[in-house]
Amino acid sequence: MSAQRWVLAARPDGVPKVSDFRIEKLDLPALAEGQALIRVTHASVDPGMRGRLTGDSYAPALGLGETVESAGIGEVVSSTSPKLPEGALVMGGFGWTSHVVSDGRGVQVLDPALFKGRMTPTAAIGVLGVPGLTAYFGLSDLGKPVGGQTLLVSSAAGPVGATALQIGRELGLKTIGIAGGGVKRNYVLDEVRADACIDYRAQSDLTEAIRREAPEGIDIYFDNVGGEQLDAAILNMKPGGRIVISGQVSEYNAIEPRGIRWVTPFITKRLRMEGLVVYDYRKRFPEAQARLAAWIESGAVTYREEIIDGFEKLPAAFIGLFNHENFGRRLVKM
Amino acid sequence: MSAQRWVLAARPDGVPKVSDFRIEKLDLPALAEGQALIRVTHASVDPGMRGRLTGDSYAPALGLGETVESAGIGEVVSSTSPKLPEGALVMGGFGWTSHVVSDGRGVQVLDPALFKGRMTPTAAIGVLGVPGLTAYFGLSDLGKPVGGQTLLVSSAAGPVGATALQIGRELGLKTIGIAGGGVKRNYVLDEVRADACIDYRAQSDLTEAIRREAPEGIDIYFDNVGGEQLDAAILNMKPGGRIVISGQVSEYNAIEPRGIRWVTPFITKRLRMEGLVVYDYRKRFPEAQARLAAWIESGAVTYREEIIDGFEKLPAAFIGLFNHENFGRRLVKM
Repeated sequence: MSAQRWVLAARPDGVPKVSDFRIEKLDLPALAEGQALIRVTHASVDPGMRGRLTGDSYAPALGLGETVESAGIGEVVSSTSPKLPEGALVMGGFGWTSHVVSDGRGVQVLDPALFKGRMTPTAAIGVLGVPGLTAYFGLSDLGKPVGGQTLLVSSAAGPVGATALQIGRELGLKTIGIAGGGVKRNYVLDEVRADACIDYRAQSDLTEAIRREAPEGIDIYFDNVGGEQLDAAILNMKPGGRIVISGQVSEYNAIEPRGIRWVTPFITKRLRMEGLVVYDYRKRFPEAQARLAAWIESGAVTYREEIIDGFEKLPAAFIGLFNHENFGRRLVKM
Repeated sequence: MSAQRWVLAARPDGVPKVSDFRIEKLDLPALAEGQALIRVTHASVDPGMRGRLTGDSYAPALGLGETVESAGIGEVVSSTSPKLPEGALVMGGFGWTSHVVSDGRGVQVLDPALFKGRMTPTAAIGVLGVPGLTAYFGLSDLGKPVGGQTLLVSSAAGPVGATALQIGRELGLKTIGIAGGGVKRNYVLDEVRADACIDYRAQSDLTEAIRREAPEGIDIYFDNVGGEQLDAAILNMKPGGRIVISGQVSEYNAIEPRGIRWVTPFITKRLRMEGLVVYDYRKRFPEAQARLAAWIESGAVTYREEIIDGFEKLPAAFIGLFNHENFGRRLVKM
């Protein structure tokens, strides 16, 4: 058995490079009593992982030489633990590693019966995992949606944005996406079924483009991007509007972040801007997952996974997220 | 009787100039039935008036040739209105004018009995008016204070900031001000009685200076300034912190506002930033004024008025607000 893992080799300066990561052989110890060997089948790549590579106020930096962290799906290949029976489908924060020895802490056994019909097992770390839950709690708790209001979502073809738009539609909102490029725009219109979608790359003035789609103004802006897109949204907010800061992908790699120019409208339009860390809602995950699963089952919410084949492609798949490549939930199949 | 008013002569470009305003003679018509002639004794100058001079999303621009708007205190000199008896002390949005003919709409008769002891009649448009009410509702409703938490306030020697700090202390908060210059700092320490005050002009790194005063972090930042001071506060906020956008005096005259660089901490620290327009709380003004009056009576809240003598000084008094001159509530005595 050839076990291996990706470790952080150098601290990224700006956009990460493949050389910031290094493959290492992994020695797997014999299983002690109560342990299981898990073969990781899929690992996630997510823009939010960027913060851990250099550290931020939320979490300390990952140490050099440590396994890169990520969510994953796996299979128990051998076990002395009754909690993790051989053959079980499991999910956990396994990281960029082919195998992991676990005593069961932080590992969840998935019921294969759930993953039928429209639901894939990888949905456990996608639409039912951090991206889908971020969309759910960000929109419902911070967005405070009221039927008939207008929702604008950036990175609308991404896993968080596309889910937020569909939840918004189910809650009775008018939905407008922002995405980069005609292919993504068509996806947001045809599959996500937003009421409108702006291809920001085709617009010289995003503020005006939003105004054309929502002349009545925006009640809720669900932001995954930050910077210029956030500024353009602020200028289009209705009085009393809510801005949900879910992600700031345009800022994560910046040495000097751009931020926003427009704070004065927060006074004149009584705006509220608020960020979330989805783990704060842990106790309510089952409620959200049940609703999301029902919406998926009925076809009200769809999701898209982009599965890249090959353990060796993990760093490139991650780096591509900052190059506007991502489209749906990006996973790497080991 | 020589009646006159200041009108907007030109739209300011950046910081207003005296030549953006012009004195005009005012012809006072004979009083119709139900009207009163009010002699304005004091007019306010306030940074928030800047928006109306060029227009913003909150209010349309003041027309060229129109009287500059402001709050004022006056005295009824002749009247055919039972609501406005001769000799009454009144308050209203009179503008920069020596006299006004009114049918009573928007004019409030003040009970002279209220203005005894520590309370001046001009407090009606100061600590009991927009500045004091902004401090009260901003801190209590948006700041969501919890005893023992830490409050940071910018423009701490100004009428809003100084009141916010004192209300904060009465609500059991640790209070820290930011002010420009040693004289203002001493005022904030000695008269406002904040626990600490940072003279930002004496600091090369405001972020570090705040950290020294509040190593535990800031729970509530009450912002009257914006820009660099807001960024420095964001970097010092505690998880779950609230930022109240009361004013953005560093931004009002900017053609290209600076804004803030730090939005990513809104995610990692779950921050909330919210602006207010005090008129939204109109129904609760009596509640707030009663509490403020009781605090003033007991000496718990003090206020400072800077009264500039001379109608002709109105524009200069206003412009000086953007030159860090203001200290307490600035009024012009007509």
